[in-house]
Amino acid sequence: MKNLIIGQSGGPTSVINASLAGVYEEAKELGFNKIYGMVNGIEGLLDENIIDLDDYIKSDYDLELLKRTPSSFLQTCRYKLGGFEENEDKYEQIFKILDKYSINSFIYIGGNDSMDTVESLSDYATLKKKKQNFIGIPKTIDNDLPITDHCPGYGSAAKYIATTLREIIRDNTAYGVTNPTVAIVEIMGRHAGWLTAAAALAKDETSEGVDAIYLPEVPLNVDDFVQNVQKIAKKKAAVVIAVSEGLKTTDDKFVCELESESSKKDAFGHKELAGCSTTLAHIIKERTGLKVRPIILSTLQRASAHTASLTDMKEAEKVGKKGAALAFRGETGKMVVLERMSDSPYKIKYSSFDDIHEIANIEKKVPVEWIDTKNNTVKKELIDYMRPLIQGEVKQIYVNGLPQHLIRK
Amino acid sequence: MKNLIIGQSGGPTSVINASLAGVYEEAKELGFNKIYGMVNGIEGLLDENIIDLDDYIKSDYDLELLKRTPSSFLQTCRYKLGGFEENEDKYEQIFKILDKYSINSFIYIGGNDSMDTVESLSDYATLKKKKQNFIGIPKTIDNDLPITDHCPGYGSAAKYIATTLREIIRDNTAYGVTNPTVAIVEIMGRHAGWLTAAAALAKDETSEGVDAIYLPEVPLNVDDFVQNVQKIAKKKAAVVIAVSEGLKTTDDKFVCELESESSKKDAFGHKELAGCSTTLAHIIKERTGLKVRPIILSTLQRASAHTASLTDMKEAEKVGKKGAALAFRGETGKMVVLERMSDSPYKIKYSSFDDIHEIANIEKKVPVEWIDTKNNTVKKELIDYMRPLIQGEVKQIYVNGLPQHLIRK
Repeated sequence: MKNLIIGQSGGPTSVINASLAGVYEEAKELGFNKIYGMVNGIEGLLDENIIDLDDYIKSDYDLELLKRTPSSFLQTCRYKLGGFEENEDKYEQIFKILDKYSINSFIYIGGNDSMDTVESLSDYATLKKKKQNFIGIPKTIDNDLPITDHCPGYGSAAKYIATTLREIIRDNTAYGVTNPTVAIVEIMGRHAGWLTAAAALAKDETSEGVDAIYLPEVPLNVDDFVQNVQKIAKKKAAVVIAVSEGLKTTDDKFVCELESESSKKDAFGHKELAGCSTTLAHIIKERTGLKVRPIILSTLQRASAHTASLTDMKEAEKVGKKGAALAFRGETGKMVVLERMSDSPYKIKYSSFDDIHEIANIEKKVPVEWIDTKNNTVKKELIDYMRPLIQGEVKQIYVNGLPQHLIRK
Repeated sequence: MKNLIIGQSGGPTSVINASLAGVYEEAKELGFNKIYGMVNGIEGLLDENIIDLDDYIKSDYDLELLKRTPSSFLQTCRYKLGGFEENEDKYEQIFKILDKYSINSFIYIGGNDSMDTVESLSDYATLKKKKQNFIGIPKTIDNDLPITDHCPGYGSAAKYIATTLREIIRDNTAYGVTNPTVAIVEIMGRHAGWLTAAAALAKDETSEGVDAIYLPEVPLNVDDFVQNVQKIAKKKAAVVIAVSEGLKTTDDKFVCELESESSKKDAFGHKELAGCSTTLAHIIKERTGLKVRPIILSTLQRASAHTASLTDMKEAEKVGKKGAALAFRGETGKMVVLERMSDSPYKIKYSSFDDIHEIANIEKKVPVEWIDTKNNTVKKELIDYMRPLIQGEVKQIYVNGLPQHLIRK
């Protein structure tokens, strides 16, 4: 009888626990005996902070709740294990604990750094002839992992962003021509613009969509930005602009640093609390006198399980199942990847990729040829890429008016 | 054959158009001929900015879309008509336009100020023996109208706040003990704490709920606030605090003014952009060194039709129907009110109230006896009051992964 351990690492998503549920379901099906969870990822594993998932998943209902619970059920960490030459004691400590629990397979759900951990542990195990194998399962709202067509977690965040923007657009039109307002909506994604690009999905026959989209892949000319907003505000009563939190100016400075530089004398001086949208709102107000409101989607966009995409949730579950199957077969140092066979009809194939270091070290950005820099928007190719990922709605489990979650007590 | 005109005024809500739909449905049923909409409320009416609703509602599908469309379909205004002694020409202008369109009944959906408009026009009509009658329909996410048990729009905002907080709580627990974070969530309501109080609904068997709730009805002692957050952060890895945007200190200053005073030298100096949560986050970080993140729910809480409460939407529609019925009977100077017959089972009676000036001039706050100031939370009585209002989910109409709206093109 084989045992398996799962961990979650990096920033959470709305469907990260659907992958956990997928691993659990498939591992049970394949006959794994114990299915352990490491609390707080590799960091918790080093402290032997381990739970038996059967203590928490006692029914199909629990399993369905788990799939609908946002953020890492097992909690997460941002822990760099480092290379094994310099950290052999930590590596040995991990294998000692894995041996203690008779664990054969290790599955890690995470982004770039987490994949690095998987590969390092796998390499070490091979080198030292350890019996364990290591599999990675992709997740990140940022969608910045290479090789895989996209990452589970991204579709739900994109759906939340598009849904919320449609509502912000409606709200912003309420005052009409008598009182024009500019909403600057700040969307996550420090380096890659996939999430901000999802703003383009808001537009359809029942919504005029956002008026401009600024991705971090394109340096921002602040003067052009102000002029563009002014131009739009002359034609429209309500202006809604989507900006990435990671926007940089043509001088290669983060937009959010612009203000901090000029406001060093502020009583608190905490740069990190002034975001890109607040800075741009200040600038717009200062230079144009327009009424402007920064709106920061913040962690809501990665936690909004109540608007999860059904496509995304199903894919998250399936990459989990695929991971468990690979683990069962004794494969190691591999990450599950999604290959897109076609856009329409949307068709995905689940496979695996074994050069995980390549995944760990590349941040996949939005291809420049998919960005319409002239019109500050994105091209049809990008919309065709994103659209299938937000399809379908997850049937939520509501009790007393609120969506239910599974929590560890 | 009678004609009717409807307008919407003040801040929008998620279900304000369900009231519009209710008026339309009942007015049709009762045999009104033309059902007009004034665009941008009374301000648009003065400019004869009038549409025929039949040009936009062409099917039952359109009507269902309308109920699910957030923000004022007819657009809104914040226009003070003033007393008729000083503004008789404006009053006469309005009646001239109403006569031109052979309008018999005028229905206004709005909050305090809008009800003042209804009463003033009604009084003027009675005095001058005009044929028109005037009816008010309550709406406001702030829930601060007196006489009526609660206001349509509040329940959906409360449901959004509770739903989102449950997700923020989950997200915030992800990093566990290794990396404690404080989320300060800023909720609307300048003077009344009804919306902020809805944070208390987040707690149930599947959520530990927020850690403290600060309502504007209770002056904030900043030192106590910092101490309380510190105390909670010692026991918990994740701290989620709900604060009203309108919090005032014990010195009767808005919390958001605290920072502006100390940061007058900032390059832009736009006080209005620094909110209460950002200020409190700065203070917490400054005094405790804790990791802290302000989250501002902003206009999302009044526009989030995708999480509308079914109870709220039905009530919004019914007050609309009741308003049309009152209008048809020739009643004037009345506002539709909801009377609560019981909490459990929740039972509401729809009636009308005719001293609208009383409604216009009172802001209903959260009763102090419903607030647990010692523990920075709310009492059971308030939870029992709020809970029925968030029950049930509206079946959304999704096309291509996104909720559909009805818009005026």
